[in-house]
Amino acid sequence: MAYQMKRPTLGGLKRYFPILTWGRSYDRDAATSDLVAAVIVTIMLIPQSLAYALLAGLPAEMGLYASILPLVAYAIFGTSRALAVGPVAVVSLMTAAAVGNLALQGTAEYAMAAITLAFLSGLILLVMGVFRLGFLANFLSHPVIAGFITASGMIIAVSQMKHILGIDAHGHSLLEILRSLFAHLGDANLITFAIGAGSVAFLFWVRKGLKPLLLSLGLKPRLADILAKAGPVGAVAVTTLLSWGFDLSSRGVAIVGDVPQGLPPLTMPSFDAELWASLFGSAVLISIIGFVESISVAQTLAAKKRQRITPDQELVGLGASNVAAAISGGYPVTGGFARSVVNFDAGAETPAAGAFTAVGIAGAALFLTPLLFFLPKATLAATIIVAVLSLVDFTILKKTWGYHRADFTAVAATILLTLVFGVEIGVSSGVILSIALFLYKTSRPHIAEVGLVPGTEHFRNINRHDVLTHPELVTLRLDENLYFANSRFIEDYLLDRVGQGQPVKHVVLMCSAVNEIDLSALEALEEINRQLSDMGITLHLSEVKGPVMDRLHRTHFLDELTGQVFLTQFGAMRALGPVDGLKPVLAGDAA
Amino acid sequence: MAYQMKRPTLGGLKRYFPILTWGRSYDRDAATSDLVAAVIVTIMLIPQSLAYALLAGLPAEMGLYASILPLVAYAIFGTSRALAVGPVAVVSLMTAAAVGNLALQGTAEYAMAAITLAFLSGLILLVMGVFRLGFLANFLSHPVIAGFITASGMIIAVSQMKHILGIDAHGHSLLEILRSLFAHLGDANLITFAIGAGSVAFLFWVRKGLKPLLLSLGLKPRLADILAKAGPVGAVAVTTLLSWGFDLSSRGVAIVGDVPQGLPPLTMPSFDAELWASLFGSAVLISIIGFVESISVAQTLAAKKRQRITPDQELVGLGASNVAAAISGGYPVTGGFARSVVNFDAGAETPAAGAFTAVGIAGAALFLTPLLFFLPKATLAATIIVAVLSLVDFTILKKTWGYHRADFTAVAATILLTLVFGVEIGVSSGVILSIALFLYKTSRPHIAEVGLVPGTEHFRNINRHDVLTHPELVTLRLDENLYFANSRFIEDYLLDRVGQGQPVKHVVLMCSAVNEIDLSALEALEEINRQLSDMGITLHLSEVKGPVMDRLHRTHFLDELTGQVFLTQFGAMRALGPVDGLKPVLAGDAA
Repeated sequence: MAYQMKRPTLGGLKRYFPILTWGRSYDRDAATSDLVAAVIVTIMLIPQSLAYALLAGLPAEMGLYASILPLVAYAIFGTSRALAVGPVAVVSLMTAAAVGNLALQGTAEYAMAAITLAFLSGLILLVMGVFRLGFLANFLSHPVIAGFITASGMIIAVSQMKHILGIDAHGHSLLEILRSLFAHLGDANLITFAIGAGSVAFLFWVRKGLKPLLLSLGLKPRLADILAKAGPVGAVAVTTLLSWGFDLSSRGVAIVGDVPQGLPPLTMPSFDAELWASLFGSAVLISIIGFVESISVAQTLAAKKRQRITPDQELVGLGASNVAAAISGGYPVTGGFARSVVNFDAGAETPAAGAFTAVGIAGAALFLTPLLFFLPKATLAATIIVAVLSLVDFTILKKTWGYHRADFTAVAATILLTLVFGVEIGVSSGVILSIALFLYKTSRPHIAEVGLVPGTEHFRNINRHDVLTHPELVTLRLDENLYFANSRFIEDYLLDRVGQGQPVKHVVLMCSAVNEIDLSALEALEEINRQLSDMGITLHLSEVKGPVMDRLHRTHFLDELTGQVFLTQFGAMRALGPVDGLKPVLAGDAA
Repeated sequence: MAYQMKRPTLGGLKRYFPILTWGRSYDRDAATSDLVAAVIVTIMLIPQSLAYALLAGLPAEMGLYASILPLVAYAIFGTSRALAVGPVAVVSLMTAAAVGNLALQGTAEYAMAAITLAFLSGLILLVMGVFRLGFLANFLSHPVIAGFITASGMIIAVSQMKHILGIDAHGHSLLEILRSLFAHLGDANLITFAIGAGSVAFLFWVRKGLKPLLLSLGLKPRLADILAKAGPVGAVAVTTLLSWGFDLSSRGVAIVGDVPQGLPPLTMPSFDAELWASLFGSAVLISIIGFVESISVAQTLAAKKRQRITPDQELVGLGASNVAAAISGGYPVTGGFARSVVNFDAGAETPAAGAFTAVGIAGAALFLTPLLFFLPKATLAATIIVAVLSLVDFTILKKTWGYHRADFTAVAATILLTLVFGVEIGVSSGVILSIALFLYKTSRPHIAEVGLVPGTEHFRNINRHDVLTHPELVTLRLDENLYFANSRFIEDYLLDRVGQGQPVKHVVLMCSAVNEIDLSALEALEEINRQLSDMGITLHLSEVKGPVMDRLHRTHFLDELTGQVFLTQFGAMRALGPVDGLKPVLAGDAA
């Protein structure tokens, strides 16, 4: 069952259309579960769609449009049974950052750029999927993504403060937004603030206090759960009624206003080469971030039911969703964390739940939009703030600090650079830095001098263990692949080590940790062999792995090597240093 | 003796002024050797300096200027006893590529940009030296540099054809230059071609045939050597006389013309921020390429005399040389391969040989320049062509193809991209590609299932060796550091492996090749532990290295681990699978 995707029976067709796999056994039970999940997700998604469109700087209806056709596309092409696709906070923020550089908010160019961004990002995901490039996302390390999401959450929360205060502010980094907020603080509208702050407080209470309260009132857990999830809808309804009843718009409260009624329009992305060129970098970032966010939640949820997802097909699914968004007036979408968890908890069995949700949102677009006219923007901002603050989590800093300084550096830099320079520079720097730190570490490898653990055939670091060594035999364990970036370091280290005056006759390089020797490193080994030979010292290798040995056999190195290649280090010691000549070294002595 | 640089006695002073070390014991013998070497290098350097300036698109005298003060600076700050600094072919070509984008050849702006490039490149080298960033050069792998130099040699040789043919042609890539050459082929000047082709033929003969001839005539080897090295000077003298005697200039032969007589002028680089910004990338490339070229020859020559050089101080030496070039009307310089070998073979004992060479070149600038008026440019082009064709060496392609496909890909791409897009794109792509290939390899690590080699305590791949295994025990050796780029791969691989139906009770991960576990990988291990635990399988580790174990102790992982951590894999097998339950696996069976 878990491997169906990998061994398609209908040629490649089932790989690209997972619906052919799960659709065949779809039955009434599964449909019922999916329908229930769809109702709950729809209730949650309506205010979220509107709010995230606002965050992206787009008209509210584009959020709804992005929650209809993309969900259907994912239901056909996606492999996760529980992933709920649609507009999400971080991608909306990235859309605003990408498009905001090119056009003014509220203009037709701005909306067209967002649509084109979705199209481009869809194409990139599809190409990655077809060429199985999903592994590229692995270079976004977990600490970097955690730091990035935390910083993005902070930026989003602060950016929404303008709606809560009813003032004008803009910017893509924390600093820009804060400066802009302070400059306009005097214009704050008290009624707007009351609605905004009230909604934030209410929504936090709904999260923490409503469900226990409902349970204590005797409601069934399932119903209590649904009601708690409907909190944002409640806030929307109540504040819309207040806004309509007291005509708050005339008192300076910003409202959503006219939202076109009807199904999504058919749209075409722009094919302007210059626009594509300026959006390309952003589209790559959005694709990868969206994919990583989506795949993490999809894998977590699949693991709970012992299911598996196919990452490369997920790329196709998300790519199709984004192309669908682009041709139906939407903007970039991906799998959302909170909403997928809700979908899963509500019992979604197949991607059909997503298709049912699409029907629900389409219904909202058809019938509910007139009711949204008086909805205060502050209420939507409040739902965003409450949603994104759950993303802000600084424990990753503490966790990495305690575990690994390189991880900490990457996460701290990502958070800092995202806050100061915005999302695109932040996450790119995080990726580059984490790769650079990895390369730096491998360029200065750990090299341990080892000795025999008494009573075994095992060798260990002489600085850490009480071991036996032979005075004329130096055994160095190279703890890294040998490649161009560290070959000179290893050459220098070895020649320094044997130049220290001890009457060495044999040097053994223990290669149990060497998985790769590239040409630069081979040349370094040849040089080491030559120079040791000049000093009258024989060079040996031990525990060389099969694939590495295969490569060495293709060269003259083994002919030139002054010593031998031993299968085991124990064999090397037995052959080179008679066991009765061994001297114990206590861990303290050598250090 | 070899370690003096590393343990300075006069505080840090001797680190930055190696002259304080060798200068103290400088005596008459050393001075004599240095003087002889300086005479030979001067004879070789005069035509080279003029020719490389021509290649860089600069007035001939700038080549001489770049061979005076920079040599003195290197004598003070450099650590190599034999390195001969000055204008070199590849760096001259890179200078032309960098400056050619900003100004027209022959203008004052062009010369000023070249001077500024030398200054900037000097600053970059100095900063790298002071902050000990020499290791950065290690990321330029040997195959990439070999491919780059081969491709550059081809571009240079082809670019000089315009002087040999007496036509106009330009461009920075092979394609551009060839296209330009063909377009102007009709304008070729026959007399120019005769001089150029004749010089090329003569110089090749000098290289191959002159020395044996002189030896067979009974000359002493030393004298034969010097005469053979003076070949280019002979070509210069003869063609200048021809050009003067037959007034070839009036017949369309391009001559060097007026070369200002006198010592180098004092110049100031431009401090225009925009110019710096547009030269910065090129300056970084020139610095690193120049440093790598220089350090390779310096290390090779030092090793022959059991001396050592200090790479970080070499950066300071080359940085000082380039700053010296910038303030004395020169352009970027570095240690040249051919000329350093000549210097070494001629017996240079200390960097003072370089200072003596500077005096020689200064003499040439003072007294010889009027004689150069009638020198045909075709002769200089011929000396360049003969010099660079020795750099062109495609054996690196064959060598890498046989040894390692990743090395081959990097070198082939470097050659191809350098030829098609020019030096800057070529070498940058080579570096990025070789790093990307390394990262790709580490992101899909080799994982071997291992068994006990009978009669030993040693474990080996079951697909390659006849070993003993236990049916309920799967031991996987992870042949790579565990880090963010491969943690998902390893998680997928392991969970796939144990899902294959065999009644596994224990999984042991043998970590002898794991030098690093970062946070992303730790989380993957936690997930593997959790999922195996759900399946009723216990997870164990074995042969975890000290530094890795230290890190794991800082987390809760070892508490959560369902199994144990064994010091040796043999211990793990003894504890988990009673030795009498072992079944032999023949290498053929498992594959």
